[in-house]
Amino acid sequence: MKFIGVDLGGTNIKGGIVDGDEVLVKDEIKTGKEQGAEKVIDNIAEIIKRMLFQSGLRLSDIAAIGAGLPGMIDSLRGMVLYSNNLRWVKVDFVKSLQVRLGGPVPIFISNDANVAALGEAAFGAARAFPDSLLITLGTGVGGGVIIGGKIFEGNMGAGAELGHMVIKAGGCRCTCGRKGCFEAYSSATALIKQTKKAMLRDRNSQLWTICGGNVDNVSGKTAFDCYYSDETAKKVVDKYIGYLAEGLSNLANIFRPQAIILGGGISKQGQLLIDLLKEPFESGLFGTVLGPRVELKIAELKNDAGFLGACALARQRLGQ
Amino acid sequence: MKFIGVDLGGTNIKGGIVDGDEVLVKDEIKTGKEQGAEKVIDNIAEIIKRMLFQSGLRLSDIAAIGAGLPGMIDSLRGMVLYSNNLRWVKVDFVKSLQVRLGGPVPIFISNDANVAALGEAAFGAARAFPDSLLITLGTGVGGGVIIGGKIFEGNMGAGAELGHMVIKAGGCRCTCGRKGCFEAYSSATALIKQTKKAMLRDRNSQLWTICGGNVDNVSGKTAFDCYYSDETAKKVVDKYIGYLAEGLSNLANIFRPQAIILGGGISKQGQLLIDLLKEPFESGLFGTVLGPRVELKIAELKNDAGFLGACALARQRLGQ
Repeated sequence: MKFIGVDLGGTNIKGGIVDGDEVLVKDEIKTGKEQGAEKVIDNIAEIIKRMLFQSGLRLSDIAAIGAGLPGMIDSLRGMVLYSNNLRWVKVDFVKSLQVRLGGPVPIFISNDANVAALGEAAFGAARAFPDSLLITLGTGVGGGVIIGGKIFEGNMGAGAELGHMVIKAGGCRCTCGRKGCFEAYSSATALIKQTKKAMLRDRNSQLWTICGGNVDNVSGKTAFDCYYSDETAKKVVDKYIGYLAEGLSNLANIFRPQAIILGGGISKQGQLLIDLLKEPFESGLFGTVLGPRVELKIAELKNDAGFLGACALARQRLGQ
Repeated sequence: MKFIGVDLGGTNIKGGIVDGDEVLVKDEIKTGKEQGAEKVIDNIAEIIKRMLFQSGLRLSDIAAIGAGLPGMIDSLRGMVLYSNNLRWVKVDFVKSLQVRLGGPVPIFISNDANVAALGEAAFGAARAFPDSLLITLGTGVGGGVIIGGKIFEGNMGAGAELGHMVIKAGGCRCTCGRKGCFEAYSSATALIKQTKKAMLRDRNSQLWTICGGNVDNVSGKTAFDCYYSDETAKKVVDKYIGYLAEGLSNLANIFRPQAIILGGGISKQGQLLIDLLKEPFESGLFGTVLGPRVELKIAELKNDAGFLGACALARQRLGQ
């Protein structure tokens, strides 16, 4: 059976057609979010038609379409309730896309972080595990929860906001308004801020050299790059890892999944990230020795997690 | 159909026989935990036989037995992996009880906090809601998670350790070894400690009067009792409420249930507790205005939550 998956991002729409484990075609198109919801949905219809053409298929060959959308999603009614990223409020997504496609193909949607987690669970790093979390360490901290192979959404799709768990009451202000959120300490944004702060305190740090003397060149990679060669960089990373481990141990105690998968920009550190996290993460697990292990792994699907997860969502909701 | 529910506590074993929504009989017996696992299971068999006798039923009239047990429970294999409270390690509970009862009745077990949450969901304060959490504020902070009317246990029953989520990194030491756990701030134990500390700083506080000049008389009730009449007491309670709200908002953002039910000693404050929590709790919800509501409610079943939940567990696992 063939499924189409769509991953709607703030800049690009990615899509693919999958048959079993095989990707028949994948494609990408600009989101054009500044032109509003109607135009964005036009673009989604466009990429779907283009992929059908490229693969020589017709819409009637497709069992179902899945889509991962940024924001608060009412998956039962097929609506985007609210998307800060796209500036959408109550968009009747499924109906609008169905009208554009002109065919009776079923369309299923969920939040993009949930869908990426399902992608890793169905095709990627969490393949071996019925229960897993995907934590993306990027501009923010995103979270997706898979229980028994299925997305856990919470009431009206508003759950799994794992980045907005306070880990340090009264701490750094988060974009959500609270103080001390996991996201405010463990996003790439937070690491960049901490790196810059440390550089301003230590004018002799090697960090200045590798960013060409300009703090504007600091990325989520900068401090990791100097981890073994610069004391200031090491301190920044160690502190970052401490908070990240705190949040991950919390989530392990709450969900006790078989695996936690790390995605987003920071996860490009790969094995170094896992090695640094292992000890503080495991020491935070409740009933450490007697409880079941929780594996920490790096995400495998990178930019394809979204559309692959969307295909898996379509397959699952169709009961296949 | 008739079900037997058993709630194994550190001091007492409570049990009941339920037919639909009707409690036919309930009973209680000492746990005798100092005599070891075999004797405790003898006592469970004893209370089951006693209840059958009292209700004029035979074991063959019972569709299934459920039990809530303290500790890390492998519900699939019917084993207690570890119980700190009972000092049990790897006890083959279901098999041992089955041998004692001598009949082929199915027995299902889960962690006591999970089972109490199911009790409130099936018979109590969360009846109207498919998704709910029960948070018990007692000696520790216990948690049970109900998703779609069913207990969420995590891998090998080791999940839902909601009290062991760090809300203040580097904060107060918790019994589990971590620093800053929800439990270390929101248990009755934590409130008692904070009350005593505040009293030692303010020798003129009314708190001294109502506990007869003796800090050993301080309970989880003391500070609440003087909330409206003593500035020091108010400060203690307000601080306690702040941390409690922080943890509850975290759990709401993670699970987005329709309701969070509060149980345990502190929940005896009833409407005062709810009134104090409402504002700080709701301001911590992600996407406050646009997201679905999360009701805060006081548990209804008190000491019966355990055996009623155990009956609901038996009924559910039997697929009824």
